[in-house]
Amino acid sequence: MNNIRLEKVLEVMRKDKVDQLLLCDPSSIFYLTNKWIYPGERMHILSILSNGDVKFFVNKLFPIEEDLGIEIVRLDDIDDQIKILAEDIIPRVVGVDKNLVAKFLIPIMNRVDDADFIDASYIVDDLRALKDIEEIEIMEKSSKINDKAMEKMKSKLSENLSEKEMAEFLANVYKEFGASGFSFEPIIAYGKNGADPHHSNDMSLKVEGDSIIVDMGCIYNDYCSDMTRTFFYKSVSEKSKEVYETVLKANLAAIATVKPGVKLSDIDKAARDVIEDAGYGEHFTHRTGHFIGIETHDVGDVSAANENICQVGNIFSIEPGIYLTGEVGVRIEDLVIVTEDGCKILNGFSKDLQIIE
Amino acid sequence: MNNIRLEKVLEVMRKDKVDQLLLCDPSSIFYLTNKWIYPGERMHILSILSNGDVKFFVNKLFPIEEDLGIEIVRLDDIDDQIKILAEDIIPRVVGVDKNLVAKFLIPIMNRVDDADFIDASYIVDDLRALKDIEEIEIMEKSSKINDKAMEKMKSKLSENLSEKEMAEFLANVYKEFGASGFSFEPIIAYGKNGADPHHSNDMSLKVEGDSIIVDMGCIYNDYCSDMTRTFFYKSVSEKSKEVYETVLKANLAAIATVKPGVKLSDIDKAARDVIEDAGYGEHFTHRTGHFIGIETHDVGDVSAANENICQVGNIFSIEPGIYLTGEVGVRIEDLVIVTEDGCKILNGFSKDLQIIE
Repeated sequence: MNNIRLEKVLEVMRKDKVDQLLLCDPSSIFYLTNKWIYPGERMHILSILSNGDVKFFVNKLFPIEEDLGIEIVRLDDIDDQIKILAEDIIPRVVGVDKNLVAKFLIPIMNRVDDADFIDASYIVDDLRALKDIEEIEIMEKSSKINDKAMEKMKSKLSENLSEKEMAEFLANVYKEFGASGFSFEPIIAYGKNGADPHHSNDMSLKVEGDSIIVDMGCIYNDYCSDMTRTFFYKSVSEKSKEVYETVLKANLAAIATVKPGVKLSDIDKAARDVIEDAGYGEHFTHRTGHFIGIETHDVGDVSAANENICQVGNIFSIEPGIYLTGEVGVRIEDLVIVTEDGCKILNGFSKDLQIIE
Repeated sequence: MNNIRLEKVLEVMRKDKVDQLLLCDPSSIFYLTNKWIYPGERMHILSILSNGDVKFFVNKLFPIEEDLGIEIVRLDDIDDQIKILAEDIIPRVVGVDKNLVAKFLIPIMNRVDDADFIDASYIVDDLRALKDIEEIEIMEKSSKINDKAMEKMKSKLSENLSEKEMAEFLANVYKEFGASGFSFEPIIAYGKNGADPHHSNDMSLKVEGDSIIVDMGCIYNDYCSDMTRTFFYKSVSEKSKEVYETVLKANLAAIATVKPGVKLSDIDKAARDVIEDAGYGEHFTHRTGHFIGIETHDVGDVSAANENICQVGNIFSIEPGIYLTGEVGVRIEDLVIVTEDGCKILNGFSKDLQIIE
């Protein structure tokens, strides 16, 4: 159990008068216990009482060899698991994980009288959005691996490989650099494929003038990286160049606004304004960024709808793009960490327009 | 919309006095609408009223080009989606999907007064357990592809390939035979690896005397296959042979008990008794089987805890195994479909003990 993180959770529980927290998300449980278990369809609950008592209800199918420093309640498939858990629920305010499914939540509610059930995932999610020193070091390393891997990808793009083959090559590059795998299925999209937000890597080959979107990230020590660069193959048209420069300007404008106290919606606006002013507003079809950490998409985003403010220790992506259907797609993405006086970019790979020969 | 299936759902809703059903599981929505959408973290609800009105609440990010024959309500990320859905909820008994998560369920409950919320997934799940003619034909084809693929795997086992390499080979075999992919990550486990239920395919190579567990399945026309065979490399010890014959006897004994009206727990017992009588009871560490269809693990299993009875049209696996830690693992798995007078096995690949040279 990470007691520093637990104390922070307890502090918010007491302040917000949440008497008990029932977590089920494997990533949140990992964040607090340092133990990954993927329970599949089985019930799996980390129960935290506001007095500090912690119990982990976990199926006996999943081995726990280490001492987690908390009480483990082993569940068997033939047990009445809801009853076992319900007996440990202390009304009145029970905060549950946002991902707790109805097949557990409804029978738990039926077993426990006089309790108010609320979605209290924010308690852990908000904490996860504030990276500590240890997490920052790992995430910097994860992005450094991503920089080195992007160099390899750039060199490999000189060969006549399909999008799928490039993705397979990347899997091996990450392995070689000590990452444990993809943080998400990478997107390698040539030419008009890159203009389709629903495109999956296929056997397409690139032709002269194509944009090449490379959106990729790895997992290192359980933490994710994520970066996008767009290259051009052999030559670049004037129009594509204009699109590229617009996206780059949007990326830089958004990054320039990042500092503690700024609304996330204003960071989105900084990128969006540049693209709208250039006349491409309708072709920037997604939010500007997402939070990242143990998951590629941690809770929180950089969007028009998010009026929360940046805080020191937030890490999120800045990834504006322009997508001209049937023609060209350009996206440039960095991860930034909010610092006392602005932000630091985790990626070092050049954002100059680069032509692959 | 599949109106025959919808009518069956409505019939149960009326009988059980469920006024409205809110489904979110992509596979159940596919079952009724023939449309696959993976909504990720977004709200995604097929609402069915007992009077037959159907509405599909779906984010506008996901294209629906075809006419599904039902009303589509398009949701935008900036909408108050809970409010939009709640306005369409008709108390009093609202049956929700077992997989509906708390972040949607709790605010829905808070918006709708005077409604009883129950987990009503059984309405669709029970129906999905009774395969219709069309589904049976597709599942037979899916298993026929699996038979042919197992032949290819058996031949390939003569080469000196690692578990991982065998799995990669299998991906291409399935593609060649017209399947759309794995129905689950295949398990190729050599020797003592096969005795560890948590083993993941690795770079291990086989040595003489090893058991070779091959547990594999594909998706064909959206329906899954699943079969396990255990081979031996170059030679088989007397003990391994005894283990193999015991598992085979258990597999055959369980299959022999399958017919309409028999309890699923009794089918489990038939397999378990054989293995216990041979003295290996504690080494058969899992249930005898699981239902299968659109998902590899459809709802329903063949286990000591399941006292439901077999019905004509059920399709499930029979997969006893014996796992001797550090030594050998053997599992033999078939899919069976319950027929009027017994069952039919969907797999044709031989279950005789086979030595790979």
